[in-house]
Amino acid sequence: MDARPEDKNAGMPYPQEVLEIAEAVRNWARWGVDDERGTVNFITDDVVRHAVRSVRSGRRFSLAFPLQLDGLQTGAIRGRVNPLRTMVAINANRNGDRDTFCTSDDVVTMGLQAATHWDGLCHASYRGVVYGGRPESTVSEWGAAECGIEKIGFLTSRGVLLDIARLKGVDRLPPAYAITAADLDAAARHQRVEIRSGDIVLVRTGAMAAARRGDLPAYFGPIDPATGLPQASGIGLSCAVWFHRHEIAAVATDNITFEVFPWDPSVPGAILPMHCLHLVEMGLTQGQNWDLEALAADCHEDGQYDFLLEASPQPFVGGLGSPVNPVAIK
Amino acid sequence: MDARPEDKNAGMPYPQEVLEIAEAVRNWARWGVDDERGTVNFITDDVVRHAVRSVRSGRRFSLAFPLQLDGLQTGAIRGRVNPLRTMVAINANRNGDRDTFCTSDDVVTMGLQAATHWDGLCHASYRGVVYGGRPESTVSEWGAAECGIEKIGFLTSRGVLLDIARLKGVDRLPPAYAITAADLDAAARHQRVEIRSGDIVLVRTGAMAAARRGDLPAYFGPIDPATGLPQASGIGLSCAVWFHRHEIAAVATDNITFEVFPWDPSVPGAILPMHCLHLVEMGLTQGQNWDLEALAADCHEDGQYDFLLEASPQPFVGGLGSPVNPVAIK
Amino acid sequence: MDARPEDKNAGMPYPQEVLEIAEAVRNWARWGVDDERGTVNFITDDVVRHAVRSVRSGRRFSLAFPLQLDGLQTGAIRGRVNPLRTMVAINANRNGDRDTFCTSDDVVTMGLQAATHWDGLCHASYRGVVYGGRPESTVSEWGAAECGIEKIGFLTSRGVLLDIARLKGVDRLPPAYAITAADLDAAARHQRVEIRSGDIVLVRTGAMAAARRGDLPAYFGPIDPATGLPQASGIGLSCAVWFHRHEIAAVATDNITFEVFPWDPSVPGAILPMHCLHLVEMGLTQGQNWDLEALAADCHEDGQYDFLLEASPQPFVGGLGSPVNPVAIK
Amino acid sequence: MDARPEDKNAGMPYPQEVLEIAEAVRNWARWGVDDERGTVNFITDDVVRHAVRSVRSGRRFSLAFPLQLDGLQTGAIRGRVNPLRTMVAINANRNGDRDTFCTSDDVVTMGLQAATHWDGLCHASYRGVVYGGRPESTVSEWGAAECGIEKIGFLTSRGVLLDIARLKGVDRLPPAYAITAADLDAAARHQRVEIRSGDIVLVRTGAMAAARRGDLPAYFGPIDPATGLPQASGIGLSCAVWFHRHEIAAVATDNITFEVFPWDPSVPGAILPMHCLHLVEMGLTQGQNWDLEALAADCHEDGQYDFLLEASPQPFVGGLGSPVNPVAIK
Repeated sequence: MDARPEDKNAGMPYPQEVLEIAEAVRNWARWGVDDERGTVNFITDDVVRHAVRSVRSGRRFSLAFPLQLDGLQTGAIRGRVNPLRTMVAINANRNGDRDTFCTSDDVVTMGLQAATHWDGLCHASYRGVVYGGRPESTVSEWGAAECGIEKIGFLTSRGVLLDIARLKGVDRLPPAYAITAADLDAAARHQRVEIRSGDIVLVRTGAMAAARRGDLPAYFGPIDPATGLPQASGIGLSCAVWFHRHEIAAVATDNITFEVFPWDPSVPGAILPMHCLHLVEMGLTQGQNWDLEALAADCHEDGQYDFLLEASPQPFVGGLGSPVNPVAIK
Repeated sequence: MDARPEDKNAGMPYPQEVLEIAEAVRNWARWGVDDERGTVNFITDDVVRHAVRSVRSGRRFSLAFPLQLDGLQTGAIRGRVNPLRTMVAINANRNGDRDTFCTSDDVVTMGLQAATHWDGLCHASYRGVVYGGRPESTVSEWGAAECGIEKIGFLTSRGVLLDIARLKGVDRLPPAYAITAADLDAAARHQRVEIRSGDIVLVRTGAMAAARRGDLPAYFGPIDPATGLPQASGIGLSCAVWFHRHEIAAVATDNITFEVFPWDPSVPGAILPMHCLHLVEMGLTQGQNWDLEALAADCHEDGQYDFLLEASPQPFVGGLGSPVNPVAIK
Repeated sequence: MDARPEDKNAGMPYPQEVLEIAEAVRNWARWGVDDERGTVNFITDDVVRHAVRSVRSGRRFSLAFPLQLDGLQTGAIRGRVNPLRTMVAINANRNGDRDTFCTSDDVVTMGLQAATHWDGLCHASYRGVVYGGRPESTVSEWGAAECGIEKIGFLTSRGVLLDIARLKGVDRLPPAYAITAADLDAAARHQRVEIRSGDIVLVRTGAMAAARRGDLPAYFGPIDPATGLPQASGIGLSCAVWFHRHEIAAVATDNITFEVFPWDPSVPGAILPMHCLHLVEMGLTQGQNWDLEALAADCHEDGQYDFLLEASPQPFVGGLGSPVNPVAIK
Repeated sequence: MDARPEDKNAGMPYPQEVLEIAEAVRNWARWGVDDERGTVNFITDDVVRHAVRSVRSGRRFSLAFPLQLDGLQTGAIRGRVNPLRTMVAINANRNGDRDTFCTSDDVVTMGLQAATHWDGLCHASYRGVVYGGRPESTVSEWGAAECGIEKIGFLTSRGVLLDIARLKGVDRLPPAYAITAADLDAAARHQRVEIRSGDIVLVRTGAMAAARRGDLPAYFGPIDPATGLPQASGIGLSCAVWFHRHEIAAVATDNITFEVFPWDPSVPGAILPMHCLHLVEMGLTQGQNWDLEALAADCHEDGQYDFLLEASPQPFVGGLGSPVNPVAIK
């Protein structure tokens, strides 16, 4: 029945461990009580000026999955519809002379979280609040009255790819594998890249290859018979503190859930706690469905894992997210 | 009546002068007969590597108009609808415990040419063809089978602002003023900026200030009683050769029609010939509705009129255009 | 700003007079506490069987305004967008042989209240409740969990046109004229039609002629300089008791606001109380933007003001309203 | 790839048998060369006046499948998207006093052929023409310039259910079973119902029960391993002449393809010829996805297989089809 989406993911309250991390990483007063941008504030002019020094060859990589009706959504997440692009003009002539200007225009309907996208800070709430401790009623049928995606403005900084799949020597991390802070450290060390304040971190699980070959069930991850839920490898609990300590501006992954799903084995039953820690507590903008395959291959080849990343969201006023075509420039 | 958009812009065949320029600027075989990217090919790795040298302070400027229902469209261009963003989840909890993850998602319906955007190469056709001499049937109800906006891939290069309004000492160019190649040269000279192959040129008419204060009729331009059409200052006929000679990768303006409208006084009655010359003949991607106000003020202040510009389109497969959030980094 | 629609209609609390009528007409327990259909329950099989006896000649009248982008909405009611119909297939052949089946399909985006429509019972709330005393939280981002428009099922009954404009001898009622119960009685008497339990009453103000000639500002009504609001003639306060006493199943009008706007002179400052009395208290389904012009002319000519009316809504699950093509059969 | 829908249904030219029927049933000049309504012209005032005599008890049956995101479409027919209904106002108060009028509005995006619907006459073309011999270019990106669904106006007449599944003593006809003219005659005889000029005939295959229990693959029909296509029972070749001879105004079925699919065994390889015969040649409006289950059970019980049917389409200007909530009144 359309009017009441059902409860599919029966889970448990967040355990003490999650709530303690929440206290530790909370940024609510950090940039003023009116702040609507969160960790993007780490990206200063200085950070950007230094970021461009990562450009050596001028090669560019688009990290976006194509926007098409055969997109990444299966209907499992209600209302997150794939892009339906239709034509409103096809070589239309307004002039009575087809040897002069004719024009073709198109229109799209799509979920802002359907494709390669950023989550706006208000995309998640819990305990009645969104980022900054604002009441959840900040979000209404008109969108986010504060902290809309348009407030982010820019996501231009140094990008750093941490290729966890390659670190582990696999094409893709195993189902439900929870990436740890130790993994992030190991990848940075192994890749000989130093993490800096204001960096945008891209974490590769290897999932996107399945989407690229059109196998969405594989992309989502195998179904756990016990829960009926797909099992996705992704960001695990310990990473929040790591992102906090390193003053990361934003984090994106190459999978659909961002974090490990259905849960980190250290907190069984705790559903999507990283969304709450990152978006609500830290004000850390998250990205999903990023295609890191070609970039990762190139980084492996030349050993350069940092680059200038330009991934500013589209300024949807009050938006809860935005499609993005992230461009990495090496 | 919906099924047949009416002829509003009765005009005349393109005169010989336009057709001669068409011959002169045609790029159809330049990058191979299968080329789908046109002048974007001028943006080589070298060009990008040099472009980043324009970054000095790290300051960033977004050149996008906000995406909202109160947008830039008035209904005059049929089907080009302003962004209608609606919610499909509002703090929705799937877990039975609102102290855990709740989520808010949104969906948009919008014209791909409604806001700050790039025209895809197939956005215009004339004489039965689109870019490369492909038949106009390349565009169907499913979009552009070739030369879709997703083929552009990247629009990352050095950007150069040519502030024609300031050159003329006015806030905004007069209605129906046709910018000339001489104007472009004069602005470059006056601004002490050298144009290079692969540059993306941003031409300022001053129109956007009207849109920013919510006055769309003023933004479009005053109605000419003789034609019933708005009169917009914009790119004039002689500019095509200038862009061609300088190997410009893409050009964007701060008005709704890009070119002077309804026509350049040198070719009265010729409607929108620049769209045909640029998109069809040259394969030159055009941008419209760019907000150049803050950037122009800054360039005037520090005298630096070039910058790194990242304005890659969203990869709509077969798309005739794409909204864009162009970011200039100085 | 998109995220917070502004307060346009500053008004006053409902006065005691409105609240007393609310008590008098409340139907919350009338058809059981679980009832989701309200006064539509008056339409029994017997009522329908008798209704068909109104058919004498077999002539039919469609009471719908055409569904098109040039529709009845001006943007004044945010999000109520006119129908944008686009094509997803145009003579598309899937077979390689155009001498066999080719097909054309279309898609629409439209406000369910944008055109000739029914309001679902949950379209209005006040004092925290919707019909039946259900909490207003019955309506969420997914629609109406109870009392959705699909629950109405049928709106097939005897229709009776009460032509108040003709009663008053005018083409259209004056701006802000509040139709009274006495007017309804006088029209019925003058038209020699008896009102029966289960009837669907159509009330004509004469506004639709303006919409038919494309003059939407006139259709909405002249702007009152004091309030900045359009002044529409429509259903006035005393009608609620009349509808209640006569056991009317549903009521529709030929204007945009249904009731007099901005307010009935007997309760100045009380904005849209009839919506609350009818939808919330009585469970009386309301229709707006019905085109009664041709039907009214015919009824005047032959003196027959009753007919079989078939106006069942489209079964949008959880819908707050539905476009309808009402057909009157005389 | 979005821009070019693939050829899925490789088939063969229509054989001589189909073309001979085309000649026999063609109605192009029948109601004048400008006719845009086809066989709906059979529904005269007299026909309607007689149709209401079928009403005996006043019981009503809605034949529509619910309009919801979990609808009848699977994505197999590109662009025919299920209804996505979203909210643009949720108990929104414009008055500063929630004890006065608050309002909830919604918007829908849906394929006009996605749910229970009528095909407009231009929904099919072949041999370069649509109904009346008009060129196929009658249909453009703006819809049908002639013969749009709004031209139908009314579909109100006597309805007759022909329950072929029950005639054959099965819950559902076997996969790919082609209903014959002899079946229609046998059902009418067995049901003791006489067919009259202007009737709307509803043909039951029994498929809808599968859709009602949420099993869309079963609803479409089992996949034929040889062709990869679903096998649907439906209207077979000989029915066209039968509909023509009986002067049927419109025909609807309870399956997704209307006609037998992939083909009638008498013309193997001929894909969807009935669409061409009915829509292009006869101007016979077709309905699909009608839910005939409850109506059929009732007709079986009381032996009355005729009724007043009100199923007028929504007046989408230039529309290729329309959702409909058909109401049968017995």
